[in-house]
Amino acid sequence: MNTPYAIGIDLGGTHLRAALIEHGKGFLKQAQTDTEADGGPARVLDRMADLVRQVLRAVPGGDVAGLGVGAPGAIDWKRATVSYPPNFPGWTEVDVRGALQKRLDRPGLPVVVENDANVAALGSAFYGVGRPYDSFLMATLGTGVGGAIIYRDRIFRGTTGGAGEFGHMSIDHEGPMARSGIAGAIEGYLGQHFLSQHARYRLLSRETILHERAGDDLEHLTPKMLFEAAEDGDEAAREVWAWAGHKLGCALGSAINLLDIRTVVVGGGVAAAGDYLLEPAREAMRRSVVAGLQEGLCLEREPLGNDVALLGAAQLAFQPDPGDAAGPGETAPTQRVEAASSSHAPS
Amino acid sequence: MNTPYAIGIDLGGTHLRAALIEHGKGFLKQAQTDTEADGGPARVLDRMADLVRQVLRAVPGGDVAGLGVGAPGAIDWKRATVSYPPNFPGWTEVDVRGALQKRLDRPGLPVVVENDANVAALGSAFYGVGRPYDSFLMATLGTGVGGAIIYRDRIFRGTTGGAGEFGHMSIDHEGPMARSGIAGAIEGYLGQHFLSQHARYRLLSRETILHERAGDDLEHLTPKMLFEAAEDGDEAAREVWAWAGHKLGCALGSAINLLDIRTVVVGGGVAAAGDYLLEPAREAMRRSVVAGLQEGLCLEREPLGNDVALLGAAQLAFQPDPGDAAGPGETAPTQRVEAASSSHAPS
Repeated sequence: MNTPYAIGIDLGGTHLRAALIEHGKGFLKQAQTDTEADGGPARVLDRMADLVRQVLRAVPGGDVAGLGVGAPGAIDWKRATVSYPPNFPGWTEVDVRGALQKRLDRPGLPVVVENDANVAALGSAFYGVGRPYDSFLMATLGTGVGGAIIYRDRIFRGTTGGAGEFGHMSIDHEGPMARSGIAGAIEGYLGQHFLSQHARYRLLSRETILHERAGDDLEHLTPKMLFEAAEDGDEAAREVWAWAGHKLGCALGSAINLLDIRTVVVGGGVAAAGDYLLEPAREAMRRSVVAGLQEGLCLEREPLGNDVALLGAAQLAFQPDPGDAAGPGETAPTQRVEAASSSHAPS
Repeated sequence: MNTPYAIGIDLGGTHLRAALIEHGKGFLKQAQTDTEADGGPARVLDRMADLVRQVLRAVPGGDVAGLGVGAPGAIDWKRATVSYPPNFPGWTEVDVRGALQKRLDRPGLPVVVENDANVAALGSAFYGVGRPYDSFLMATLGTGVGGAIIYRDRIFRGTTGGAGEFGHMSIDHEGPMARSGIAGAIEGYLGQHFLSQHARYRLLSRETILHERAGDDLEHLTPKMLFEAAEDGDEAAREVWAWAGHKLGCALGSAINLLDIRTVVVGGGVAAAGDYLLEPAREAMRRSVVAGLQEGLCLEREPLGNDVALLGAAQLAFQPDPGDAAGPGETAPTQRVEAASSSHAPS
């Protein structure tokens, strides 16, 4: 690495973001635009290249180590392709590396693409709350429930980079179906839509401030409202979070028993509920983990929010081997940067 | 490695076994004795050293690469100690390496100790049904339900070597307690004792040949009887296996979603039920795995039985780094031997 700068890109269904990152320090410049996914892949890639040009202007000396892209869908890491990302019409298999090199007129520019959940976990590992831990499970609670595994400072990818699909783990093999068709999958309780529905049914006949805030029939209830009500002292809302935290902790316990990885980092919008959710989750997690693996159990919230996606994406470019745990031909582990993101804190 | 011979030792609660293994070929000599665990650690180690001497006599040229030991309890891999193995009175933390070196009067002899479940999986990976797969989850169905993870030809150990504790994964967070105190843990359905109890209650009022074989009240029912009844065409017994297979498949599905490792190898005595158990497990597993991870799913039975424990233990000695996936200071992956165990098949 002859330059301490790289660009991280977050390809979201709604927003497209790019940032210039200084290695071990953090954000130097950010830019954001609408993805306009309906315009098809060429349009999205044009917009992505525009964003990169914007942040490139801020590079001292003009040289970057490369681009890292976090993307939904199936990723072929070697070929840097993205296939069938959900909600991206017209994307079959898209060569993101080639497309960006061409649009930026930089044929040799290193471009690394990785699954967005893995990228976020890498960001947490190098810049976020995951920094002190060499291994952790990241659980991302948003529209869906996703996740990733960092094992000894590297992404644990599994067969095709799909490892860490925590949201599809089941806590009740005869439970309600999640969108995936998997009975009792944790996403079917904690995914944003499911959480709102479960909360609504649990609260309809309860005394709660949410009857004033979420419509007569609680039909407009959101996790954000649930959090605000809990903050305002609403007991019924707090009970819903405790219910959700219990489910979360049970699923995490199963994961920990399988992995013997004892740190969990929780990210995503729903994690903003903080200890209303996480304290019951910690309690249930402890009870779901076998005696021999109790030492050092911990569950933390990632406070950097979506910024871990950009930081992790840039990290990919600093670490051109994506850090696959035990991958063939792996390089020596990149030194973990301890001073991360202090002087250039995320905006 | 200047000699193709190593000794594998299996420290079981009832039996103590040792074998001389030729690298990539298999068994040259085996010996077995009672563990006599009640005699305390010194007595067990004496007996272990005796066994080693017996098989050492068969070494052509007299030189071995080392000893590998598969043991229950908590293992400190670096110090080669075994702590608090269940059903071993008097074992606090025992230095197995030092004890064997001293008793055999070979101070420099390499001795590697590893968790018995991990050792069995390594045996399957190098000599058994796991051979064609670079990554798999091994689930061992015996008195308890155990497991281990092989990731890219190496043991995935997790923080302390406890990874792969498949038996403690829960399929129902409000289900019956397993011995571990974990609600709905798969061991609480498939552990030998639990399986017999569940089967008994499911069969008490059913028409089945087992009423003749397992006592008036089915109080002597064992998995072996259940298997034999299924073989004899007993429909009720087959339904019990289908019930158990369904539970197994649901738990495996959760594990696969988390690991993106798509091969499962099932071992242990209960796995002898074969497709009565495994076919329903395959079906449930498929339904419990998310769409994107379906390709290449497979579930196989390990036909080598307990021999994988001895083969895997010897493999540890051939591969002095225990093969920890992504471990610091790891060596290059040992070449997988394709011709394994054909000319010297296990007895």
